[in-house]
Amino acid sequence: MIINDVAVHEELTAAFARYEQALVSNDVAVLDELFWQSEHTIRYGGGENLYGAAEILAFRNARPSAGLERSLSRTVITTYGSDYGTASTLFSRDSAPGKTGRQMQTWVRMEDGWRVVAAHVSVVDTTA
Amino acid sequence: MIINDVAVHEELTAAFARYEQALVSNDVAVLDELFWQSEHTIRYGGGENLYGAAEILAFRNARPSAGLERSLSRTVITTYGSDYGTASTLFSRDSAPGKTGRQMQTWVRMEDGWRVVAAHVSVVDTTA
Repeated sequence: MIINDVAVHEELTAAFARYEQALVSNDVAVLDELFWQSEHTIRYGGGENLYGAAEILAFRNARPSAGLERSLSRTVITTYGSDYGTASTLFSRDSAPGKTGRQMQTWVRMEDGWRVVAAHVSVVDTTA
Repeated sequence: MIINDVAVHEELTAAFARYEQALVSNDVAVLDELFWQSEHTIRYGGGENLYGAAEILAFRNARPSAGLERSLSRTVITTYGSDYGTASTLFSRDSAPGKTGRQMQTWVRMEDGWRVVAAHVSVVDTTA
């Protein structure tokens, strides 16, 4: 299994960037597109535990669209073979000083493109 | 790509169970074995952000071994093809009433067996 094949890594990096842009602009259509449309998809969010694409979409549609801007740090994207990858990043928001967000996503290349099959977002106190 | 092939799912379920048993008994050797020995491995924990297998092992070696017992709920293991899977679960501890833990792991079948390549653990207030 090839880890971080250059072409695969570039593809997933582009998908990750597209997701990030959709997130900060609250582009729900793109966010929904990039999550696997399956009952198996899971997203643990800042305070909610969502099982299945329908619950995830309902959460996005109800989410306030203000204050989503954020800065990323220590972003690591790793690919395993040609169809699997993970994307992990820390993030911070001016509106939440002293807090560090962590976002981890598992991506799979499905027939219609790269999709997030599982995601976990949490916020902790910034240390050090 | 076959989702949840029965034999693959059984394999990963067994690996997940082995990890859980090692976690609650603080069997650091098995925990370390089941994480991918790579600088790319990432573990976001309850309050720490660990990059690379060495940081993860150092954290485990320094961790108090008491009070690790926990109950799991809503555990979902999903496999994608023959070599890739995710395991997501909620957990609770008697020592932390009113709190819900969330654990998400990405597993890859490496040459030496199934390994966790990325993991994220967080704790939130229990809702509903």
